[in-house]
Amino acid sequence: MKQKLMNVLINDRSQHPERLNATPERILEVLENISKKNMNEYSKNIRSILGTSPKRQEITQDIAEKICNYLVSADIPDDILLFIADQLIASEISTDEAVEMHETYKIPVSTLEKDLVPVSGKGCWLMDTKGKTYLDMDSNYSATNLGMSNEEIAKGLYNQASQLISMKEDRVQIARTRLLKTIMPMMPKGLNYFYFQNSGGEAVDKALKIAKAYTGSRHVIAFKNGFHGRTHGAVSVTWNEKYRKPFGLDHEDWVHFADFNDVESVRTLMEKKNAKIIILEMIQGEEAGNLAATQTFMDELFELAGEKGAIVIADEVQTGFGRTAIKQNDWFACMGYNVIPDIMTIGKSFGGGYPVTAVVTRKEISQAMKGGYDGSTFGGNPMAMTAALIATRQMRELDVTGNVVARSRQFEEGLKHLSKKYGLPGEIRIRGLMIAFSLGSSERVHAVQEALKDHGVMSSLSTDKFLRILPPTIISEKEVTYFLEALEKSIQDTM
Amino acid sequence: MKQKLMNVLINDRSQHPERLNATPERILEVLENISKKNMNEYSKNIRSILGTSPKRQEITQDIAEKICNYLVSADIPDDILLFIADQLIASEISTDEAVEMHETYKIPVSTLEKDLVPVSGKGCWLMDTKGKTYLDMDSNYSATNLGMSNEEIAKGLYNQASQLISMKEDRVQIARTRLLKTIMPMMPKGLNYFYFQNSGGEAVDKALKIAKAYTGSRHVIAFKNGFHGRTHGAVSVTWNEKYRKPFGLDHEDWVHFADFNDVESVRTLMEKKNAKIIILEMIQGEEAGNLAATQTFMDELFELAGEKGAIVIADEVQTGFGRTAIKQNDWFACMGYNVIPDIMTIGKSFGGGYPVTAVVTRKEISQAMKGGYDGSTFGGNPMAMTAALIATRQMRELDVTGNVVARSRQFEEGLKHLSKKYGLPGEIRIRGLMIAFSLGSSERVHAVQEALKDHGVMSSLSTDKFLRILPPTIISEKEVTYFLEALEKSIQDTM
Repeated sequence: MKQKLMNVLINDRSQHPERLNATPERILEVLENISKKNMNEYSKNIRSILGTSPKRQEITQDIAEKICNYLVSADIPDDILLFIADQLIASEISTDEAVEMHETYKIPVSTLEKDLVPVSGKGCWLMDTKGKTYLDMDSNYSATNLGMSNEEIAKGLYNQASQLISMKEDRVQIARTRLLKTIMPMMPKGLNYFYFQNSGGEAVDKALKIAKAYTGSRHVIAFKNGFHGRTHGAVSVTWNEKYRKPFGLDHEDWVHFADFNDVESVRTLMEKKNAKIIILEMIQGEEAGNLAATQTFMDELFELAGEKGAIVIADEVQTGFGRTAIKQNDWFACMGYNVIPDIMTIGKSFGGGYPVTAVVTRKEISQAMKGGYDGSTFGGNPMAMTAALIATRQMRELDVTGNVVARSRQFEEGLKHLSKKYGLPGEIRIRGLMIAFSLGSSERVHAVQEALKDHGVMSSLSTDKFLRILPPTIISEKEVTYFLEALEKSIQDTM
Repeated sequence: MKQKLMNVLINDRSQHPERLNATPERILEVLENISKKNMNEYSKNIRSILGTSPKRQEITQDIAEKICNYLVSADIPDDILLFIADQLIASEISTDEAVEMHETYKIPVSTLEKDLVPVSGKGCWLMDTKGKTYLDMDSNYSATNLGMSNEEIAKGLYNQASQLISMKEDRVQIARTRLLKTIMPMMPKGLNYFYFQNSGGEAVDKALKIAKAYTGSRHVIAFKNGFHGRTHGAVSVTWNEKYRKPFGLDHEDWVHFADFNDVESVRTLMEKKNAKIIILEMIQGEEAGNLAATQTFMDELFELAGEKGAIVIADEVQTGFGRTAIKQNDWFACMGYNVIPDIMTIGKSFGGGYPVTAVVTRKEISQAMKGGYDGSTFGGNPMAMTAALIATRQMRELDVTGNVVARSRQFEEGLKHLSKKYGLPGEIRIRGLMIAFSLGSSERVHAVQEALKDHGVMSSLSTDKFLRILPPTIISEKEVTYFLEALEKSIQDTM
């Protein structure tokens, strides 16, 4: 036990090259996390051993030994000592220091989420620096659909990094061949020409480039309330002006915003601007609060594109890999609508959490690109391909789409029930496990989200009066029940 | 031995989740890679065991057992059996299949490099599907400066993926705190506000957004022959028109190209366009063939920027992390020039091969960004931060900058010697280990590169008449000598 404690205080780099030594503040924080009697006394004694150890710096071997000697000689039960070791492995840095480092040195592009600091996870569950566990309802915007950790991907990445850690996009490599050999059955018919990228925004940006090269036209029809990412290209086709204006991207002459679910609006703009490219999310997430295209709109839009010789880019970065399945093997939203886009962007949980995305298209369009038109150092690197190989295999083996269909029904029934029981506005927008649930006001949404945390559920996404949830696509029936119960308590708490 | 062979034919997924079962073609290819007598006979017998196994598909348990039984009962020495196992672990897919899958299903954005298919590496050395080894002179455009595999990063990523595989950019997390705590001593003074990204192009794209938000101006001075990446933003400031024209990005009204190393050209354009943003590579790589800024130009440019209230973005994606060091601890090119840019982009070997990049700036500029201005699912994820923590620590511990200075001198002397001895044009552009060496014509460059391969050196980069090399920054004295000897033989071969 002493050695185990020593190894978490003074990091055994051969075992954990990703950690540092513990800091005084974290050691004391972990003791405070234990709500057992006598811990105050232990803390007091350890505080005195730490003495004048420099603040927020790695402790020395000498101090670590004194702490270990004290801990094992005090009458602390083994299970508590193990908890201390586990907490220190999860983080050797205190919550306050982690938050302050982020507040100080992170360029504040987004609102910092500092209410809890997750350190480890298993399946749909997260543990934070305080040792509290939460059921995850965010999936990191759909990036961790397969859960917060992944032993098989961990092993695959270990092997790949030990063998060949990177290889540029333009060179043939085996990990990419493996993925190409296995992923084909999941793809919409004919969409099997790939350009791998590293982020969703980058995939959208490159999809626009490919569409422009193919059509020979710059003009793009995008949609009001659409969201596609943050690069110059991706943000230009994103509706919300506050995402574009600070960067002078609010007057791009090549982007034209049509009304979603209104084909006449698309037709008018296409004719006026002679546009040959349409980009859309089939279920508008982020900005619109999960607004699904109607089947009629999809049918009419693809008919219109055909009539005008235009191409459709489906941005399936968030909707893909089973997230919006309405029947088994709906790997992408387009499959549920029975349409095949000309170009599709995919990402998020593609690598089970590893950053890997892609532009996918059919042969004819792919040939519009020529050697030198683009290029990438990291796109489709062997680590990314390994993560994607394993993640997509897990999706098939776990029948993720089947699970999404069943859990979606369970969520819908549960939410309808709560809505009726508590007289909530209760508009439910649900497609697969892309769910938005109206609580009447954004204040109420935030109050409920805070209450949910008290009941062991982490849910940080919202759009106006809608609570948005993106549960992991592997969520179980029991876990959905756990959420619905926590939600009911939170609704009661905030009435 | 039989079990070992079995496990590489029928993949033991618990050990190698990243592999598939072997294909008939690969088994035969590996046998052909062994240039020992009698192998023809073995191949013939195995071909008959494989019989009608479906082409390019994973072999069955039954066939695998027959092959193993035959291999261990034949009088093949153990070292050859081990070589067979190693080769199958490296790839269970044949070279032909890997090449054809890439030729068929990769969107042809770049010229496919199919002359050899690397499967594993150690330090500066690569092994291909044929079992041949090569000294690497490309470092994947500088992404694998620390070598082609990395046991410590492998272990760190294993631990991180087992613990917490991803976390969105806007949430506080521990892996990022660790990196922030340790990287500061490597940064130029005051440049310690970070926005982590996934690719170099993405970092440049976001750096432009931050610069635009801060200056309130869209206009950007970029340079002729500059290269900054491929997203809409990054490619717009890239000089080569063939990278922009197919996408209608050749008439961007916000980009103005000045002459490199000519401050008056910059001044004129700035005044004419009232531009407040300058972006440059201090050593122009890709397009210009490693053309370094003069010290005078750097001094004048920063003076001009100060005078005009403009800001300078140094694109150090390729030049950073010691690549262009001219003295110890020159972690970024700007340090060698004694200037501090306002914004810097970093990437490539930042994560030792893992895709991680960043925009770095000083506090005042960072504050121009507000919550909601940008956002990222994968930017600064815990896996990326872990890879960067370990890679940057290795760089410091290995004294990469000191090594670059010493090896740079060795390359320079060796290249000068060869140039004189063989009466070559021999212009040498060298800054740290960013090296371009004129061979008179692009035909000669390609001929020498082909010959180099015969002598065990992989070098695929060139710009016109310049052979470009980006050796790993950890390259040893002996390995540089190996390269210089191979180059001399290749020059002789192609005279």
